Amino acid sequence: MRAPQKPRLRAADDAVSEFTTARLSLYLRCLEALDAAGTRTVSSTALAERLRLNAAQIRRDLAHFGELGVRGVGYDVKELRRHLRQILGVDRSVHVAIVGAGNLGRALADYAGFRREGFDIVSLFDTAREKIGQSTRGGVLVRHLRELPALAGRERIDIAVVAVPAEAAQEVVDAVVGAGIRAILNFAPGTPHVPSHVKLRNVDLALSLESLSFFLAQEKHAKAERS
Amino acid sequence: MRAPQKPRLRAADDAVSEFTTARLSLYLRCLEALDAAGTRTVSSTALAERLRLNAAQIRRDLAHFGELGVRGVGYDVKELRRHLRQILGVDRSVHVAIVGAGNLGRALADYAGFRREGFDIVSLFDTAREKIGQSTRGGVLVRHLRELPALAGRERIDIAVVAVPAEAAQEVVDAVVGAGIRAILNFAPGTPHVPSHVKLRNVDLALSLESLSFFLAQEKHAKAERS
Repeated sequence: MRAPQKPRLRAADDAVSEFTTARLSLYLRCLEALDAAGTRTVSSTALAERLRLNAAQIRRDLAHFGELGVRGVGYDVKELRRHLRQILGVDRSVHVAIVGAGNLGRALADYAGFRREGFDIVSLFDTAREKIGQSTRGGVLVRHLRELPALAGRERIDIAVVAVPAEAAQEVVDAVVGAGIRAILNFAPGTPHVPSHVKLRNVDLALSLESLSFFLAQEKHAKAERS
Repeated sequence: MRAPQKPRLRAADDAVSEFTTARLSLYLRCLEALDAAGTRTVSSTALAERLRLNAAQIRRDLAHFGELGVRGVGYDVKELRRHLRQILGVDRSVHVAIVGAGNLGRALADYAGFRREGFDIVSLFDTAREKIGQSTRGGVLVRHLRELPALAGRERIDIAVVAVPAEAAQEVVDAVVGAGIRAILNFAPGTPHVPSHVKLRNVDLALSLESLSFFLAQEKHAKAERS
């Protein structure tokens, strides 16, 4: 099976949307499950069936990063998994800081899914004096936000997660950018401004609820049609 | 501008993936912003540019639900917005219960984005005696999980959000299903079993972090190529 040593990674551009990276993440989860089950090779059709996606779409997504499969044979599970981890930047531990030690920040600090996928929650920051020095249930220490610049360099923080109220978000984002961090995941409502060299993703938790209300609305309509 | 009174809603099928509903949600957010800015019509090309998506994809997504636009003219912003709300089932208030009054459950109960998009957090449930009767900062009362069946009917709960530790998830999901709720958003690790008439969506917060580590990895690679 031909497998290049290093996938061709394109320079960051907006052509790769959040939807594409979400699909790459799903492929990776699927390959991890296949690998754990001892499966050696997988076709795009088999991947498509498992993920309920389109096989052509899967081939296109993966072809974007080089020749990762062999026509008529499929993908080597271990190889593709390794390549996807590299493409997604999780082939090494990714260091994450969370700002905001409220309910959401604490929940995110202890969220098991982050560690499992290679994200290392390095620290939790806040400005409320009574919270500094506390630890989350999972053992993440709360530090004062003013320690962020020093820690960002020393701990090589790659990504900051912003979990503060809307009115504090821009100030926190400015502090994060000032500390030299170039990727931000924002849970606060609204869209804070960042300079062009910084990537900001807004999390909209209502999207998941809408996918369920869509399902309920469809069901209701189907029932109305039948009766 | 021709606009049918009611969009053709297909019966629930797996052909409409979570990615499609996420795109529909994004279209809706965009139309809400356009409407607020007083824009009357919008073309699929203009939508595509704003959302950095493909115009053909947008037309295909929307055509799936009937003739919502007019060739050469585009979409009526108010009409399409109304139709999308109907398609996504958020043309009426959607009632949501959250199970698990830990950090995550409390954060979700107070998450402003839910209310803004038409989701009404009816109640928060837990089994820990010391939590029952408390309220979140946003004023959502914590009730005992055993009250769920009665409340599910009385308050017409559409969706249950599961925010409990992994080891409690299946038991909670069973209780939710037993209460007659047919849509579940699960934040717990793993995939609990549900009967076929119940729709379960797992939230994987690591996906958003991976879209950022992807960006950082691409950047690093682009830098290596340039030097």
